[in-house]
Amino acid sequence: MAYQKLTPRSENYSQWYNELVVKADLAEQSAVRGCMVIKPYGYAIWERIQQSLDSRFKEQGVQNAYFPLLIPKSFLSREAEHVEGFAKECAVVTHHRLMNDPNGKGVVVDPNARLEEELIIRPTSETIIWSTYKNWISSYRDLPILCNQWCNVMRWEMRTRLFLRTAEFLWQEGHTAHASKEEAEDYARKMLDVYADFAEGVMAIPVVKGVKSPNERFAGALNTYCIEAMMQDGKALQAGTSHFLGQNFAKSFDVTFLNKENKQEYVWATSWGVSTRLMGALIMTHSDDNGLVLPPHLAPIQVAIVPIFKKADQLDAILEKINPIADQLKQLGIRVKIDTADNMTPGFKFAEYELRGVPVRLAIGARDLENGTIEIARRDTLTKETRAIDGIVEHISELLEEIQNNIYQKALNFRLEHTRKCDSWEEFKEEIQKGGFLECHWDGTAETEERIKEETKATIRCIPLDAPEEEGTCIYSGKPSHRRVIFAMAY
Amino acid sequence: MAYQKLTPRSENYSQWYNELVVKADLAEQSAVRGCMVIKPYGYAIWERIQQSLDSRFKEQGVQNAYFPLLIPKSFLSREAEHVEGFAKECAVVTHHRLMNDPNGKGVVVDPNARLEEELIIRPTSETIIWSTYKNWISSYRDLPILCNQWCNVMRWEMRTRLFLRTAEFLWQEGHTAHASKEEAEDYARKMLDVYADFAEGVMAIPVVKGVKSPNERFAGALNTYCIEAMMQDGKALQAGTSHFLGQNFAKSFDVTFLNKENKQEYVWATSWGVSTRLMGALIMTHSDDNGLVLPPHLAPIQVAIVPIFKKADQLDAILEKINPIADQLKQLGIRVKIDTADNMTPGFKFAEYELRGVPVRLAIGARDLENGTIEIARRDTLTKETRAIDGIVEHISELLEEIQNNIYQKALNFRLEHTRKCDSWEEFKEEIQKGGFLECHWDGTAETEERIKEETKATIRCIPLDAPEEEGTCIYSGKPSHRRVIFAMAY
Repeated sequence: MAYQKLTPRSENYSQWYNELVVKADLAEQSAVRGCMVIKPYGYAIWERIQQSLDSRFKEQGVQNAYFPLLIPKSFLSREAEHVEGFAKECAVVTHHRLMNDPNGKGVVVDPNARLEEELIIRPTSETIIWSTYKNWISSYRDLPILCNQWCNVMRWEMRTRLFLRTAEFLWQEGHTAHASKEEAEDYARKMLDVYADFAEGVMAIPVVKGVKSPNERFAGALNTYCIEAMMQDGKALQAGTSHFLGQNFAKSFDVTFLNKENKQEYVWATSWGVSTRLMGALIMTHSDDNGLVLPPHLAPIQVAIVPIFKKADQLDAILEKINPIADQLKQLGIRVKIDTADNMTPGFKFAEYELRGVPVRLAIGARDLENGTIEIARRDTLTKETRAIDGIVEHISELLEEIQNNIYQKALNFRLEHTRKCDSWEEFKEEIQKGGFLECHWDGTAETEERIKEETKATIRCIPLDAPEEEGTCIYSGKPSHRRVIFAMAY
Repeated sequence: MAYQKLTPRSENYSQWYNELVVKADLAEQSAVRGCMVIKPYGYAIWERIQQSLDSRFKEQGVQNAYFPLLIPKSFLSREAEHVEGFAKECAVVTHHRLMNDPNGKGVVVDPNARLEEELIIRPTSETIIWSTYKNWISSYRDLPILCNQWCNVMRWEMRTRLFLRTAEFLWQEGHTAHASKEEAEDYARKMLDVYADFAEGVMAIPVVKGVKSPNERFAGALNTYCIEAMMQDGKALQAGTSHFLGQNFAKSFDVTFLNKENKQEYVWATSWGVSTRLMGALIMTHSDDNGLVLPPHLAPIQVAIVPIFKKADQLDAILEKINPIADQLKQLGIRVKIDTADNMTPGFKFAEYELRGVPVRLAIGARDLENGTIEIARRDTLTKETRAIDGIVEHISELLEEIQNNIYQKALNFRLEHTRKCDSWEEFKEEIQKGGFLECHWDGTAETEERIKEETKATIRCIPLDAPEEEGTCIYSGKPSHRRVIFAMAY
């Protein structure tokens, strides 16, 4: 495979992204419209995301379970808002059998195998899960229920992009049931914190924690909490959501419990999810024109070692030196690959590891052996230095943490630099086109929000949880406002 | 929840199984016909199965990936035998949108949103994966490809049973591509060994490794290797399969590579899978009339500790003694639960842990505190003893391994006791009704196999890989045979 440069971000950001996803072997389009193939390298990153989140969920008392892929059509209509949000574009199963084509070769749908009620491939699972919880809950002693599932879901998107918007995607969806409003609302907030800590600590993606405006709420929720990240083109990406669902689904599926006062009450609910969309956020937050930049905590290969050799005996001498170092790194839990392939030049390998975002690359040749040195290259800064091989293990171990912190800090600085206050409508219309987050006063009405969206395509990303109280006037309507919200263009 | 006894196995084995799955909180039927809900306790066991298998796959060089849920209908027709095997009973997606019912409430399928080509929910993924591999493979240097995916699949079964046969089930499917026939065939054999080692070492299920007769082969395979286990009712359960697919799928999807001799050649393939059916095998191999019996290597809770107390200060005194022991056990990687609930009697708790198959249960009360003793109960033998609390940690650690070995040995003895040679058709017809494995001579023809199935419902489970050469005559046709095969009734 010949090495071709990526389209630079400054030239065409969208094309840069599309090329990077494919060239770095993360994912590709499949034969099925809008559905992606997640390739082994991309999936290895997703597995690290899963493992890290899964153990955080379990620390919160969450247990995994599995609910059906298919949902009876009628379930979607039970919750009035939910049906509006999710019943429109979805995959509908109508038959359960194929038969040989009576007119020739191939197979056709057997018209006699029509289902009595159509089934929908889950776009999200609140309905099927609450129809199940009905049988699990009778008393306050059965609560809380804290379940999560890792699964595939499907929404028939018209315009798809790898990871960012695909018809089928992978995600986790947590669904909890509680005996009180306070407990449920607290839990929704707590899971938002879990997401934010994970995004910042593991993915090195700084996020704003906030609450959605009513227009942007999940269909069926009373409150949607979210984490919003800023991509390098200044657009916002919603990286995770946690919903306080009130008693809406309990009422739709008649799920009640006997409370401590011996009275029947509807159960309180939350749901929360993150998806393979996080892969898109990861790519667009850190990567550069040379390719992927991976945070060490998620990189499937953290250190790539490239021996530089012409003959087999040279390779043997290098390996004798390098193998013990690789072993020591592995003992520290560091993921190392020694690349001894003899059908690619070192330069080609360097470019490959750069493209794939490997945080640290070591190179060692005959001269280094003589001098007791090794070349060490950082993916994040694209800097190289030659160091004494003594003490290299400790150095790499520290360097990986330094890189993790550095790319987080870089992304945070970028967001801070591209976040500004805006106080007039004229200014807003101009500034919003430049990208970034605009902190503005808003009158709190859906009408104003919709007008702004119509005129500029910008949306309220969230009302930050830490937004200070501040009196002001709405940039659009001039009506009074008590705090600023974040407007941005969004993925 | 009142504690109700299970129907004894001797009375109604099938009902015992159905009750056990539900009462032990493993799984239940969902609102969607044939699709199950896997409950948290059942899923926790499945997660251990996944983790253990996944690390074994990775030791074999396998990487995980993800391929689409939906398969274009035409793909299924590409491989002639495959379509016969899998295109019949499957979930067919025909539309991609719902709309509000013009005649009233609810939603209906939008007739304008019919797909040009119907999509099938994957019953297995050979077709979509080989259509993808076509783009990944051009030279021998691209081979081997060793991919696996953990996912859901769907086969529209008419008669379903939890775990054993469900319309939707979870599984892993490995799909490998190789440059030579020998390498592919070796790989299929190697994965069978991985499955067998896992089944015996982790699940404590003894298995016979064998190859399927042509009638029982996977649709599209040249050879299907399998592991067969014997359940307590003497029926066989196929616990995993590994297929050598030859060049069939490469030819159907035109996947060729330039070999070392610079010639285009079709790629060689394997596929291999195990599913949530393993949960059924686990339950039916070890459990008894009191409930589940779990091998310690898979048990989500390995040691349950029940303090016996009336007042809070009694509990405190017990916890003071017990907490350090629990901590020491946890440090050894042992999964411990201390059950301090005050709304259930100790007797109720004992029955619950028995029902859920927890391998070791400890009970400790005021008298024990005085005496420095503790009661220790084994789930596998249902025996109890009172021991000195000193040295209990080491004892439990050894005991868990002893239990693991004991239930394996018990299952192996059961299989050996219920496996016998059979040399005449009259004897066969009588013996096969008693259950167990019958080692018989067979003439090697599909016709004889079918006749035997028609007359007795018994099938050839496999030709054991270690079957010695032995001249004999077919029990049915009297024609010559060179080795014995295993006949049994099967799940």
